[in-house]
Amino acid sequence: MSYERDIRIEFNHCDPAGIVFFPRYFEMINSMVENFFRDRLEHPFERITMIEGHGVPTVRLETDFRAPSKLGDLVRFSLTVTGVGRASLDLYHRAEMAGETRLEARQRIVWIGTQRRATPWPEALRARLQSIQEENPT
Amino acid sequence: MSYERDIRIEFNHCDPAGIVFFPRYFEMINSMVENFFRDRLEHPFERITMIEGHGVPTVRLETDFRAPSKLGDLVRFSLTVTGVGRASLDLYHRAEMAGETRLEARQRIVWIGTQRRATPWPEALRARLQSIQEENPT
Amino acid sequence: MSYERDIRIEFNHCDPAGIVFFPRYFEMINSMVENFFRDRLEHPFERITMIEGHGVPTVRLETDFRAPSKLGDLVRFSLTVTGVGRASLDLYHRAEMAGETRLEARQRIVWIGTQRRATPWPEALRARLQSIQEENPT
Amino acid sequence: MSYERDIRIEFNHCDPAGIVFFPRYFEMINSMVENFFRDRLEHPFERITMIEGHGVPTVRLETDFRAPSKLGDLVRFSLTVTGVGRASLDLYHRAEMAGETRLEARQRIVWIGTQRRATPWPEALRARLQSIQEENPT
Repeated sequence: MSYERDIRIEFNHCDPAGIVFFPRYFEMINSMVENFFRDRLEHPFERITMIEGHGVPTVRLETDFRAPSKLGDLVRFSLTVTGVGRASLDLYHRAEMAGETRLEARQRIVWIGTQRRATPWPEALRARLQSIQEENPT
Repeated sequence: MSYERDIRIEFNHCDPAGIVFFPRYFEMINSMVENFFRDRLEHPFERITMIEGHGVPTVRLETDFRAPSKLGDLVRFSLTVTGVGRASLDLYHRAEMAGETRLEARQRIVWIGTQRRATPWPEALRARLQSIQEENPT
Repeated sequence: MSYERDIRIEFNHCDPAGIVFFPRYFEMINSMVENFFRDRLEHPFERITMIEGHGVPTVRLETDFRAPSKLGDLVRFSLTVTGVGRASLDLYHRAEMAGETRLEARQRIVWIGTQRRATPWPEALRARLQSIQEENPT
Repeated sequence: MSYERDIRIEFNHCDPAGIVFFPRYFEMINSMVENFFRDRLEHPFERITMIEGHGVPTVRLETDFRAPSKLGDLVRFSLTVTGVGRASLDLYHRAEMAGETRLEARQRIVWIGTQRRATPWPEALRARLQSIQEENPT
């Protein structure tokens, strides 16, 4: 099952054409990942980065911008777990409003240890991620 | 009565010390004003800027940063109308968490007409702003 | 030949780990495109968007983040024209420091007319883009 | 004598009206302080924050926005040292183009020790700051 959140397009996100400036979409995607870790994994970013000294950097990101989002739009973002590797996590993001797809993105993040190197997921996190992946409709 | 919203401090807002980078607070303050116009005045920014060709730029802003906010904090922002001028609006912002004040700001915005000049508030907006100001405790 | 600029990694770009927060890289990539239009095409964004009512939105972006950039780094960005379509432009971006590749990105932008639809490049711009593409080493 | 830098107003800085979104000015002001520490004090932010574990947070900021800056403008920012306290530094910022003042800001920053408390300036930094302040025209 996907993790979903609605994001309001605010002034802060918009360019001189009154539509989302594309780097702001990546702030939204990062916010999705961050809230997914908080809400679904119960392992928030402040614990990962400030207490444990770990990190979850993005190593690859492919994005198709399908249609513009305008100031005031309430856009539904969804995040789906598509793969759980030894140290990596593959996510699929979609943003839509009123049935219109605004963007699709495929993101790979990795779990980074205190030496700033990719490190296997802690067992509890991996189990939780795999269980979330298995909830996906087939 | 003040208009209040809780804002979660996310990765996007934080600097290398893991606390809010101060320009991000101004994005939050702008979001407060924007949501106040949407929720309390029922006159959202997309109508003001994209349809009517008006604007509400900030002309003066005084801010005291009282204590840092950290990644993961859920900070309560409040906006209070402190003055309604011919073309201006004075706002007082406060952000706090667990009784600790994080920042206070005094902001003056002005209503701008299609000629990009300060212009008297439309009567309906002024009446609504004055009514909101009168709800303040004395 | 590639278009190159050095970008200093500032506080503004960095996350709580003291490295570039990935959405900021896309602000840098957009700045590269913007300065390329100004310096190499002599057709700056303020003319495109504010005077002509055109636009150059990104429709697809693939990015590999190879190594982190740290606060204070002076990173060399290069932009190479890899394809000129009827209404599209394919760009390859690379960022590096001291021989280490920090990121590579492949971006497709399109020329948008006043009706917000993809529109053939104006002839002068297309000729200039093709001439720049032909300068690439083979 | 003031420390000056020209900043180009890019897409990234602008709102749906095609003018600078005011929180972006604070990113520019922070960049001015950061480059002043690098160029004039020879004590860059990466040394302060990543190596020494110190910081220079802003505790107070007063800003008057005098006139809007538009996409493509090349704006001259200047930073003047107006006061050197035990642990604080008072700065005056001005941004202008073609003789028109765009903004003025008065900022107080403090030197923070490894315990996250205001701490007296290291003697070498204080001497350098006082010498810079004495260069101001009287």
